[in-house]
Formats: sequence, structure tokens, C-alpha cells
Amino acid sequence: MELVNNMHIHEFQEMMKRLYIQRDSKRGVTGTYNWLLDELGELGEALEGKDKEATENEFADAIAWLASLANISGIDLESATIQKYSGKCPKCQNSPCQCTF
Amino acid sequence: MELVNNMHIHEFQEMMKRLYIQRDSKRGVTGTYNWLLDELGELGEALEGKDKEATENEFADAIAWLASLANISGIDLESATIQKYSGKCPKCQNSPCQCTF
Repeated sequence: MELVNNMHIHEFQEMMKRLYIQRDSKRGVTGTYNWLLDELGELGEALEGKDKEATENEFADAIAWLASLANISGIDLESATIQKYSGKCPKCQNSPCQCTF
Repeated sequence: MELVNNMHIHEFQEMMKRLYIQRDSKRGVTGTYNWLLDELGELGEALEGKDKEATENEFADAIAWLASLANISGIDLESATIQKYSGKCPKCQNSPCQCTF
């Protein structure tokens, strides 16, 4: 068992790969995407309640399924994220964002 | 401008806070959640195509809006994630997962 107390986005995606790649591959992109949507529904329900632990649990599931989906889609989630969001707003190029829309 | 070439989940959430907390707070939890769902819809469309850059872009937006939603919900995404997923399947306690369902 691997214990962690901090996590790069890339490391998390790799951990999800070690844990779930066989099942994720078998389920496929569409099935995994639909599961992610279900998890987002559960997150929405948790956000309407007042149970912080339940809400944390659903946030964890949301990023977990997003990482699983990225794994079977051949996407490096951390690279994709840094490519777009790297310390400034990708639209107005400022930090904080000063977009006027 | 802050340049990065790797990113902890926590650092990414903090960066999103610096960039967008004012706008996110004003929009509120429900509005931000709905925006996240819209982004997930765009991710689904991108996954049906063959444009890898577009797909990466939508993955980046999905995790960005998830981080924004966590910010205004008072949730530390990295802590929540590590609490549930820490090197083993939270259900069967194995790595790789050996759940039978």
C-alpha cells in the first residue's frame, strides 16, 4: 500500500491508472464519461446538504472519474491543465482575471 | 505571471482561487455547479471528435471548474481526494482494485 499526504495531478492520474485501468478500459470512454456525469449528479446533491464529509467524498469521486476518463482517452490531465491554466486567466491573461464579460 | 511545469492538486486549486475567487463567489455554488455541468457537456462533445488539443482543453476546463466549485464550497480538493483515494481502492482495499461487482 502506498501512503500519500500530497499529490500532483499527474501522480493522482497514475495512481488511478494502477488501480482501475483494466476496469476503465473494459467500460470504455462513453461508459466512463456517463459514470462521471452520475458522480457529478451525486456531487450536486451533496452540495445541497450540510454534510461536509459527504461533499468531500463526492469531490474526490468527481476528480477520480475525471482522471479515469483521461487515462482511457490518452490525455495527461496535468499537462492539459498547465497548458491552459498557468498562473493567469487564459482569456484576459491577467491574475486575478479581469475579463469584463 | 507565475510559470509552472508541474502542479499539486492543492496548488492548482489555490491558483484558481487567486484568478477567479471574486467571480466564483459572486456566481455562487449553484451557478458554478451548473457551469461545471456545461463544461462536462463540452468535454463529452470533444471526446466524440478526434481533436486531441480540443479534448485536452476541455479536460483542463473540467478540472478548473471543479476547483472553482471546491473553492466556494470550502472544500480542499487534494485533502478530500487523498482521504478517499490513497494508493488502494476505497471499496476493496486492493491495488489494483479487485472489486467483483
